[in-house]
Amino acid sequence: MPSDDRSFRGGEDAAAPVDAGLLSPVTARTRGAASDDVVLRHLVEAEISLGRALVSVGAAPESILAALNAAADPDWLREIDIPRLAGDAVADGNPMIPLIALLRARVAGEDPDAAAWIHRGATSQDIIDSALMTLGRDVASRIDADLGETIATLALLAERHRADPAAARTLTQHAVPTTIGARVAGWIRALIDARSDLHVVANSLPAQLGGAAGTLAAFVEQFGPDTAAALPALFADELGLAQPRAPWHTERRPVTRLGDALATVVAALGLVATDVATLARTEIGEVSLGAGGGSSAMPHKQNPVDAVLIRSAALRAPGLAAQLHLAAGLAVDERPDGAWHAEWPVLVELLQLTAGAASRGAALTGGLGFDAGRARANLALTGGLIVTERLGIALRPLIGSARFDELVEAAGAGGDLRELVATLPEAADLDVDALLDPAEYLGLAVSLADAAVREAREAE
Amino acid sequence: MPSDDRSFRGGEDAAAPVDAGLLSPVTARTRGAASDDVVLRHLVEAEISLGRALVSVGAAPESILAALNAAADPDWLREIDIPRLAGDAVADGNPMIPLIALLRARVAGEDPDAAAWIHRGATSQDIIDSALMTLGRDVASRIDADLGETIATLALLAERHRADPAAARTLTQHAVPTTIGARVAGWIRALIDARSDLHVVANSLPAQLGGAAGTLAAFVEQFGPDTAAALPALFADELGLAQPRAPWHTERRPVTRLGDALATVVAALGLVATDVATLARTEIGEVSLGAGGGSSAMPHKQNPVDAVLIRSAALRAPGLAAQLHLAAGLAVDERPDGAWHAEWPVLVELLQLTAGAASRGAALTGGLGFDAGRARANLALTGGLIVTERLGIALRPLIGSARFDELVEAAGAGGDLRELVATLPEAADLDVDALLDPAEYLGLAVSLADAAVREAREAE
Amino acid sequence: MPSDDRSFRGGEDAAAPVDAGLLSPVTARTRGAASDDVVLRHLVEAEISLGRALVSVGAAPESILAALNAAADPDWLREIDIPRLAGDAVADGNPMIPLIALLRARVAGEDPDAAAWIHRGATSQDIIDSALMTLGRDVASRIDADLGETIATLALLAERHRADPAAARTLTQHAVPTTIGARVAGWIRALIDARSDLHVVANSLPAQLGGAAGTLAAFVEQFGPDTAAALPALFADELGLAQPRAPWHTERRPVTRLGDALATVVAALGLVATDVATLARTEIGEVSLGAGGGSSAMPHKQNPVDAVLIRSAALRAPGLAAQLHLAAGLAVDERPDGAWHAEWPVLVELLQLTAGAASRGAALTGGLGFDAGRARANLALTGGLIVTERLGIALRPLIGSARFDELVEAAGAGGDLRELVATLPEAADLDVDALLDPAEYLGLAVSLADAAVREAREAE
Amino acid sequence: MPSDDRSFRGGEDAAAPVDAGLLSPVTARTRGAASDDVVLRHLVEAEISLGRALVSVGAAPESILAALNAAADPDWLREIDIPRLAGDAVADGNPMIPLIALLRARVAGEDPDAAAWIHRGATSQDIIDSALMTLGRDVASRIDADLGETIATLALLAERHRADPAAARTLTQHAVPTTIGARVAGWIRALIDARSDLHVVANSLPAQLGGAAGTLAAFVEQFGPDTAAALPALFADELGLAQPRAPWHTERRPVTRLGDALATVVAALGLVATDVATLARTEIGEVSLGAGGGSSAMPHKQNPVDAVLIRSAALRAPGLAAQLHLAAGLAVDERPDGAWHAEWPVLVELLQLTAGAASRGAALTGGLGFDAGRARANLALTGGLIVTERLGIALRPLIGSARFDELVEAAGAGGDLRELVATLPEAADLDVDALLDPAEYLGLAVSLADAAVREAREAE
Repeated sequence: MPSDDRSFRGGEDAAAPVDAGLLSPVTARTRGAASDDVVLRHLVEAEISLGRALVSVGAAPESILAALNAAADPDWLREIDIPRLAGDAVADGNPMIPLIALLRARVAGEDPDAAAWIHRGATSQDIIDSALMTLGRDVASRIDADLGETIATLALLAERHRADPAAARTLTQHAVPTTIGARVAGWIRALIDARSDLHVVANSLPAQLGGAAGTLAAFVEQFGPDTAAALPALFADELGLAQPRAPWHTERRPVTRLGDALATVVAALGLVATDVATLARTEIGEVSLGAGGGSSAMPHKQNPVDAVLIRSAALRAPGLAAQLHLAAGLAVDERPDGAWHAEWPVLVELLQLTAGAASRGAALTGGLGFDAGRARANLALTGGLIVTERLGIALRPLIGSARFDELVEAAGAGGDLRELVATLPEAADLDVDALLDPAEYLGLAVSLADAAVREAREAE
Repeated sequence: MPSDDRSFRGGEDAAAPVDAGLLSPVTARTRGAASDDVVLRHLVEAEISLGRALVSVGAAPESILAALNAAADPDWLREIDIPRLAGDAVADGNPMIPLIALLRARVAGEDPDAAAWIHRGATSQDIIDSALMTLGRDVASRIDADLGETIATLALLAERHRADPAAARTLTQHAVPTTIGARVAGWIRALIDARSDLHVVANSLPAQLGGAAGTLAAFVEQFGPDTAAALPALFADELGLAQPRAPWHTERRPVTRLGDALATVVAALGLVATDVATLARTEIGEVSLGAGGGSSAMPHKQNPVDAVLIRSAALRAPGLAAQLHLAAGLAVDERPDGAWHAEWPVLVELLQLTAGAASRGAALTGGLGFDAGRARANLALTGGLIVTERLGIALRPLIGSARFDELVEAAGAGGDLRELVATLPEAADLDVDALLDPAEYLGLAVSLADAAVREAREAE
Repeated sequence: MPSDDRSFRGGEDAAAPVDAGLLSPVTARTRGAASDDVVLRHLVEAEISLGRALVSVGAAPESILAALNAAADPDWLREIDIPRLAGDAVADGNPMIPLIALLRARVAGEDPDAAAWIHRGATSQDIIDSALMTLGRDVASRIDADLGETIATLALLAERHRADPAAARTLTQHAVPTTIGARVAGWIRALIDARSDLHVVANSLPAQLGGAAGTLAAFVEQFGPDTAAALPALFADELGLAQPRAPWHTERRPVTRLGDALATVVAALGLVATDVATLARTEIGEVSLGAGGGSSAMPHKQNPVDAVLIRSAALRAPGLAAQLHLAAGLAVDERPDGAWHAEWPVLVELLQLTAGAASRGAALTGGLGFDAGRARANLALTGGLIVTERLGIALRPLIGSARFDELVEAAGAGGDLRELVATLPEAADLDVDALLDPAEYLGLAVSLADAAVREAREAE
Repeated sequence: MPSDDRSFRGGEDAAAPVDAGLLSPVTARTRGAASDDVVLRHLVEAEISLGRALVSVGAAPESILAALNAAADPDWLREIDIPRLAGDAVADGNPMIPLIALLRARVAGEDPDAAAWIHRGATSQDIIDSALMTLGRDVASRIDADLGETIATLALLAERHRADPAAARTLTQHAVPTTIGARVAGWIRALIDARSDLHVVANSLPAQLGGAAGTLAAFVEQFGPDTAAALPALFADELGLAQPRAPWHTERRPVTRLGDALATVVAALGLVATDVATLARTEIGEVSLGAGGGSSAMPHKQNPVDAVLIRSAALRAPGLAAQLHLAAGLAVDERPDGAWHAEWPVLVELLQLTAGAASRGAALTGGLGFDAGRARANLALTGGLIVTERLGIALRPLIGSARFDELVEAAGAGGDLRELVATLPEAADLDVDALLDPAEYLGLAVSLADAAVREAREAE
């Protein structure tokens, strides 16, 4: 730790701090998706890719390629003291100056001439922004896989329970019947859309290459304008990123779009989790869960832990995505004075949070079962009033709205709805049992379930 | 005000409260874009469109169309006591029950049979969600026009100043030269992208029609499944909205996408405003503004008021968009217990805020001028160090990095950079004046400006 | 509307827009607490109070007091065209320049010499900040009254149900027994603390008086340093605000503290509302509500509308309070370039939202009842497993942990827990019925309820 | 890693992920303040303190104390595989079940009877909440020290520059003169207030002890009601926390208050940083910085890195504090289904962010110098118009407002203000040079600086 850091009274923080997500269980098992060792790899990959692009464009000699590859050696990367690098990054405000020194030394060890080509013409932002894009793409790919698995699992559940009636609830109250499948269909649609959004965004993330302030002047100076103009696309190709039409050092839409897509994924998972947590309530009991969470004090409980953890992510993701828009709207000059720096940890955290939520989503749905019997039993809780809407359609024309409202009120106060309807002279011709059967008032629920299953299968 | 409201001790709030944006100047002049009278119109339009769709699908008789039209009469709408309606909305949690009563009475006055077709089979959410979508589309259209004007104005400025050199600043410090046009090009690209995003989203906003809980059961019950299945698309057509593939009562991506697009617009405007406010600083002075803001205490000041107000919007929009993702992720049951209700005022406010920011953006750029002379003068402030990067490219090969760093340090400490370079024996062959001329180290700035101007013209 | 506003293509927004909270039902009935007419009154009061303070300090002649009072005339204030004033505020970025002109004209009509004393030595920020403080204090007072009523109501409920057993739920699952009173006790404590926080903050809000940039130079110039130094305290006294130790034009803790206290109030109400909405679920049914919300499609439903609306506020308030901290942290210069302007609408909205939530809270709890029988019935849903913790304390020492866990598992799988325990030879001496009676495993629930009731009564 | 985790396709994340703040430079050097190893220590301390409290209350035998102490052995704690523990925490939703198993085994190794006293009667929330409170207190103490140093440093600067005139700027424009000391005085007041708030909150953080659901039933069952009632206070004493008046499992004000105080600290630091970053602009240049940040591309630059990093924190802290209010307002049941879990990582991050910002604040101010000469030079940039307010006070009575405004306009258009005033016949008696001297129009700036210096010294 550099000696200029007089905070926290001395060297007590010398040991590498540990962060394994001990108090962030939703991300704990997937932190490896965007942990600092992975970030480091992406930063190095961006530097190396710039070198390769310089070769590719004819500016640098092909002879440096071997030395560049040495810097990508995983064993060497693993030896880098990341806490020290992170500490050194503080003085400059970003990790590139110390990292470039490491890279140049490493490359020079292979080929002294190659070192001069590391970071040549570039600025820290070129590397950090591009690395965040490849990181984002890679994590998105893992999220995509978990979402795909989750959707496939839910399609099976929607198919199995396509016509199993269940209470639809609005503002916490039984409203009308629906089917289990129709409810799951909504989850499927939400997940398909969110996955699609993320896919589109993740496949259009652009490389960043602008030089010190977005004019590519150092490239022009050294290699001429045509080469400089060609370089960003070649750099993007090396990284497997989209070719930028211009540097975007202060136009942060690539970052906000990624953030918005991630927040959309977490919201879709949050919808599933919030419904599952509700359906898992002791009094409702319409779902069974896989290996649920234990309780330190209450061994009988099977907590909907995955749903709970996903919900904790759903509470956090919107705020993180908002930080990215905030940074975008406060961009200033040719590199902002804090807004850019605020993006990095937030984007990394949002990637980890979404990866964690997607992973928990796959685990949650993988163990999920529906209790169609309990759902049907719950449907009976209002003594038939759950089909009040249907009754109204049938009875209002016969007895008028005033009498119908009285009838509903009498049933709500404890009267026997079947009896109240059956004894109406005007209803003599009605099949009261059929009229009151929730399973006969499902609307398009079954076909909505079927359509979502089809859509899920087509999306695979 | 209903008598059950015992809060705020009595009837003191009986008079209609006024809200004209007195303390929200960024939105004050454009509140009419999404004020309650406009919202009311959209709610009524949704109800009427449902009636028309019922006619169109063959469920309702054509004879009701005239009566429906009566409910759309602007004069009648203007007579509705909106504060009373808003007050009555509290008891039910939304304005539809009292509004439907008003509409039925109005329609019945024209045609007693028509009243029964108002809201038939629908639920409040069908109307509110659909009205928010038409409102969003309409406000987006107005925002689009302001953005278009702003982009066109900026294209003229970028063209005029395409090659006028100016200091590029990073982390508040002079970095390398750029051109005024290249800076404006970044604004143009950000605005074009944001406008494009909003355009795409605003043109794909779907109608909502699901009935009580998303199964369309009341439509099926009354008109059969085929008619019910056909109805949402016809309803969407009446409203000029996209046809939904299913009800989206708890899948809120249409709302979050709109919010994200609006936040993206505000961020792009925030970029412009933050740069302008910075360039307008007394010490920098590279821009001139149109009719600036006065000061109650200091009549000499010309404040960059539009930029300041846009910045205030850029601080607020991300939080509003985040609320929509939060609501989406906490959706539960077949209609959420608070998350849905949280969307309405937030979306309305975000629409107003974005409309206000776009309007201010047009005013800001409409009066904007650049002082190329002052920009060039500022370029000289570092005594030539602004081309340090270029110097390094030229001199490091000649004198080595160590001596180059000493030279830069000497210049930074007050030495005469031209002299320091000119007296280097190794630099005898260099044209030092040309080397130190910022205008000769512009990289691709001019061509980036030109490309953005072309893009702006093509986007018109 | 000034002619320089070319946005939104023409004069279509000429009519005053209406905002009555049509899509913000939680605030609709209490908008009068902080609507623009009320804001205007506070702005005028601040100006007049400055005039009075100038008299009080001996700078201005007493003869102007009568003319100042004329500007406070409610009838005259009602005649002010607020939409026009709001529109005029846009050009200067705040409403003070046009408002001061109105005030000077009004005062001059009474006493031509008095007009010169309006706003003398002050800046817009002095007036706006001070007016926001008196507004905040007044709205806080109304919130305080609603909270007081709510706490008193809850104390009656906690007392009545102090010992009525109910299921405590953790992570949605039945955990152990508690009492209804103990649950309500938690609500009471949260509300008492939040009310206390708001009370402390609202009674220490400071006046702002710093002149153009916080040095009070214009006061010093005109009246000498001693008078200038004495003026802020006198101004504060006139407004009934706390005396500032210095101008706080860029130290925004008074604003953030108020925001934090308001958010704390909404969170406490959110706790109550979320519990009530949960307990009101059809399957749980442990609460009865007063006049509940109707449904446009389902007349049988009694929605927990007040709880739902409060929850919508609980989703929004944190983001609003965060905006105030954001503005505080971005304050710059002697008056920030957007951060200050972002505070006003946010603070007004947070005041309205909290007032609305508090009002809804009083309505919600005023109609609230508990169904102790249903709570007791729900306690039986786990077949006795709700006292598993107690059983473990009794049985683990007798049969060991392994056998105890098997027993719990068997009961969880459908076994008869009473039977399983009763047939344990080791449990022969236990009173199994008592052991399994949830009402005998209440811990300190009753005394916690009693303590909260006492605290509520003492807080009155 | 448990085998049930099918996400991220296989065991590729087996290696412990590294998180050293590589992309979070503001926190990188102070992560040790709240890293997982530190969190683990606090969790263990809470468990041990509960055991000690059980001894202290007479429930547990004194003989277990030695075994308890063994579990606090730092060497043993360092051996715990935290990534594994974090991974195991996922299944239960919190780390306590696996951690308790570790602790029991460790304690049993010393004294088999002691193991049964670990976590006896408690629930995970008791430990996690209490550990977060001791963690918060400890980090707050470190922040307090950094703030104390920062305030002391700023007091020296305010004293040195108490009367050095400088331009006060409002909405980015020169407004009137102030002094460097008066500006620093505002920073000092903001920091003193924020530090005081944090101090008060950090010293009143309560222990949490409620058992499974807040009734302390397991304690009552095992030790009787009097002992159970006495236990929370003793537990608090062991931890050095405030005694809770009741469990606060769903009343989260202790958490939100801490969050609000931390956000207040970051906002105060943000004020300093934003001003410093502005004053450090190349064109303004009124501050000198200590070891500034380098640039990978531009070696001549001295970036205000600490200010930039603090600003990045100021953009993030409000959102984090908001998450805590959000969680508080969505608390439900006797332990929330996600809201509680969302608090942990957010509070930890907010602690780290504030600690990092405070540390950077001490470094920033430790190296900070003011260039009084440059400040005075900047004061002249408006050609005297910076004292327009003063001129108006002097001239309006002599020449009327209309002519005065013309004069200001003429000067603004480039006229020589001194000449314009000096040639006014009515101004013949005025000392024009004195009138135009910014140093003679400082109002109370010097005394405000002095007062803040005094306050800073008293606060030490």
